[in-house]
Amino acid sequence: MAATASSSSLLAASASSSCAAVSTRRARANPAASASLPSPSRAPSPPLRASAARALRSRVVASAAPAMQPPAASRVSTVVEVDLGDRSYPIYIGAGLLNEPDLLQRHVHGKRVLVVTNTTVAPLYLEKVTWALTHNNPNVSVESVILPDGEKYKDMDTLMKVFDKAVESRLDRRCTFVALGGGVIGDMCGFAAAAFLRGVNFIQIPTTLMAQVDSSVGGKTGINHPLGKNLIGAFYQPQCVLIDTETLNTLPDRELASGIAEVVKYGLIRDAPFFEWQEKNMPALLAREPSALAYAIKRSCENKAEVVAQDEKESGVRATLNLGHTFGHAIETGTGYGAWLHGEAVAAGTVMAADMSHRLGWIDESLKKRVIDILEQAKVPITPPETMTVEKFKSIMAVDKKVADGLLRLILLKGPLGSCVFTGDYDRNALDETLRAFCDS
Amino acid sequence: MAATASSSSLLAASASSSCAAVSTRRARANPAASASLPSPSRAPSPPLRASAARALRSRVVASAAPAMQPPAASRVSTVVEVDLGDRSYPIYIGAGLLNEPDLLQRHVHGKRVLVVTNTTVAPLYLEKVTWALTHNNPNVSVESVILPDGEKYKDMDTLMKVFDKAVESRLDRRCTFVALGGGVIGDMCGFAAAAFLRGVNFIQIPTTLMAQVDSSVGGKTGINHPLGKNLIGAFYQPQCVLIDTETLNTLPDRELASGIAEVVKYGLIRDAPFFEWQEKNMPALLAREPSALAYAIKRSCENKAEVVAQDEKESGVRATLNLGHTFGHAIETGTGYGAWLHGEAVAAGTVMAADMSHRLGWIDESLKKRVIDILEQAKVPITPPETMTVEKFKSIMAVDKKVADGLLRLILLKGPLGSCVFTGDYDRNALDETLRAFCDS
Repeated sequence: MAATASSSSLLAASASSSCAAVSTRRARANPAASASLPSPSRAPSPPLRASAARALRSRVVASAAPAMQPPAASRVSTVVEVDLGDRSYPIYIGAGLLNEPDLLQRHVHGKRVLVVTNTTVAPLYLEKVTWALTHNNPNVSVESVILPDGEKYKDMDTLMKVFDKAVESRLDRRCTFVALGGGVIGDMCGFAAAAFLRGVNFIQIPTTLMAQVDSSVGGKTGINHPLGKNLIGAFYQPQCVLIDTETLNTLPDRELASGIAEVVKYGLIRDAPFFEWQEKNMPALLAREPSALAYAIKRSCENKAEVVAQDEKESGVRATLNLGHTFGHAIETGTGYGAWLHGEAVAAGTVMAADMSHRLGWIDESLKKRVIDILEQAKVPITPPETMTVEKFKSIMAVDKKVADGLLRLILLKGPLGSCVFTGDYDRNALDETLRAFCDS
Repeated sequence: MAATASSSSLLAASASSSCAAVSTRRARANPAASASLPSPSRAPSPPLRASAARALRSRVVASAAPAMQPPAASRVSTVVEVDLGDRSYPIYIGAGLLNEPDLLQRHVHGKRVLVVTNTTVAPLYLEKVTWALTHNNPNVSVESVILPDGEKYKDMDTLMKVFDKAVESRLDRRCTFVALGGGVIGDMCGFAAAAFLRGVNFIQIPTTLMAQVDSSVGGKTGINHPLGKNLIGAFYQPQCVLIDTETLNTLPDRELASGIAEVVKYGLIRDAPFFEWQEKNMPALLAREPSALAYAIKRSCENKAEVVAQDEKESGVRATLNLGHTFGHAIETGTGYGAWLHGEAVAAGTVMAADMSHRLGWIDESLKKRVIDILEQAKVPITPPETMTVEKFKSIMAVDKKVADGLLRLILLKGPLGSCVFTGDYDRNALDETLRAFCDS
């Protein structure tokens, strides 16, 4: 089997080899975990860098000093810092964080807030978030816009509703947008914040596993075009990401499984120990054991933050986060946005990428089998829907953002578990064979 | 008259006091100017900084060295550098620059170009620009999208036509968008380039005086919302701005006069000698004497580049470029986009700002009169249309981007010619009095 490294394989990086860009601290230990957590093997954390993170650190330290603040005051179990110079920001992870007004309020700029959410999430959390924004904070007023729920509404018409609300409410440049919901809400609210008055502050409060482990972190925002996913958007970083893991209690099983597909991705592309942990703990994740979910979210955010800090605008290594996504986006576009959840499409796409990697001789049969096994365990699809034909895949993949001068570049697995490449240098026959193997026509 | 400096008056800066951010060089002398040009009083130019500028400098030097290149080869008379670190870019100014394919081609990235233009400009220059992009350059293919002409089409529906064309043409991240037209085309194409695939390269080829002296420089892009001008957009810098002054030969008189309103602005806010030059040379400008127009464009671009280099994202001094624009935008929005040209609305707005400055006791009666006189000479409106009421002004100005936490900040003249402030610290009565003085109801 040929497995020589191409120049593009330089992009592959193991999680253990570069974590300088991310600092993580656990403010207090989780309750004894029923899931088996590997002992930390990371390099010592460098100091937090952004002023917001510094402020939090003081506070976290304070929570261990009863004279300054009651120990129970903070539920933040982990802070992951996304290190992007003057655009750095913290990701707060913990159970019940929406009960901590101070955490949210420290990142609100100005006196006006627009919460962008949807018809599913609003009845569950809008009141709570509004309370958190305004508790003991009479100067702040909160508006909200409630969008229809679903990927098929991630379009320009729906985005305009956010601008309409912002303009009608006379929000100015000192306002803050808050994204309360899953990936669609985060992407749309973020793009609206990037474009409203040429840019206002925003905060991510992801309420789905998909958004908590992936889409809320890193500043990719945007909407779909009828002909392709996420073709219109901006790189625009939030002020903070606030992950209250208790919001997962209201998440449907199908949505939970969809999020797990992105967790699996981090293991495959750069974090072999995390993948091995997932293989052992998939039942705990599906059973929503809090400590297992918290660990999966933390480790995913760390991986994401490290990659984003290295390559914010996706000129190289960041593209590897799209393992399975080129196939997956084709499924989402080809079946009509929303028929499949994003993670479901990514899961099938990941199996296709592993299949193609194996056909190219870049990974062993056994690794391909492990990919299929873990996704089957997670109860997500491992093949595309029957309506997807070879031609449909090809025509949609031709407008993928990773096409460059007509050449489709793909993220493929190469070498041992935890290694991948982003490359346009592969045998076209392997792609054709994979498409034919997964499509009836 | 009270004319004490407030803290906000620190923003006022005279052109002669800070030109380090801009370098200008004349590649060859203009033909003997019939307009009187002041002798250069600027500090020696620092070296050009961006690599593109370095490449051009070599070329410009070469044009004076027959052994390397024929002297007639370059029509570039001036290069103004916009100094923004790794986003720096040159503004080329000269007669006949569209006849120089090399100038344009050096800034095209990738093999695919999308020219965004309108129904008025396409018949005049689209063929020429396509020729310039492809001459001796068979690897590049050019698509174009021709939008309807006018401010009323600067909206999301029309912007979507650009995205549609880009997606249907399967353009990828290595493509280049070219804005060929006036300010509306430049603003829309720039925002489309900022958002397509989260950002692709773009080039500005402004063909109106308004766009050449103002809107094509500095990276402000965007579209209008039905309730307010330019409320949706991005700060996004081009690869270069190419100003072929010969394109002004096809510009209607009304459009020419509209552009002059922005030229007048630079003199009023920061460049007294330039204003004095305009007072003497307005007849030459209106008669389109090439040397007078070339000087006005060059000096305007230098002023704009200096301000933008100091404050790219308008956190302070850049706002001063909006003298008269808050009143002007209200006129444009209130009368329906396109009824008045942008410069016409700005002209009336500038007189209103001068009137209010005088009511506040911040400028002499004589300066207010000079503002009115020069704009009357330029044959642009000096009062708003009769349909604008005090209430209409107030309700539209309330959504202006310069409102902060509910307070409307304005650019007002203060002190001698060439000085202004950007401030929310003014007597509200003066604003009311100005509105009442200019509106019938």
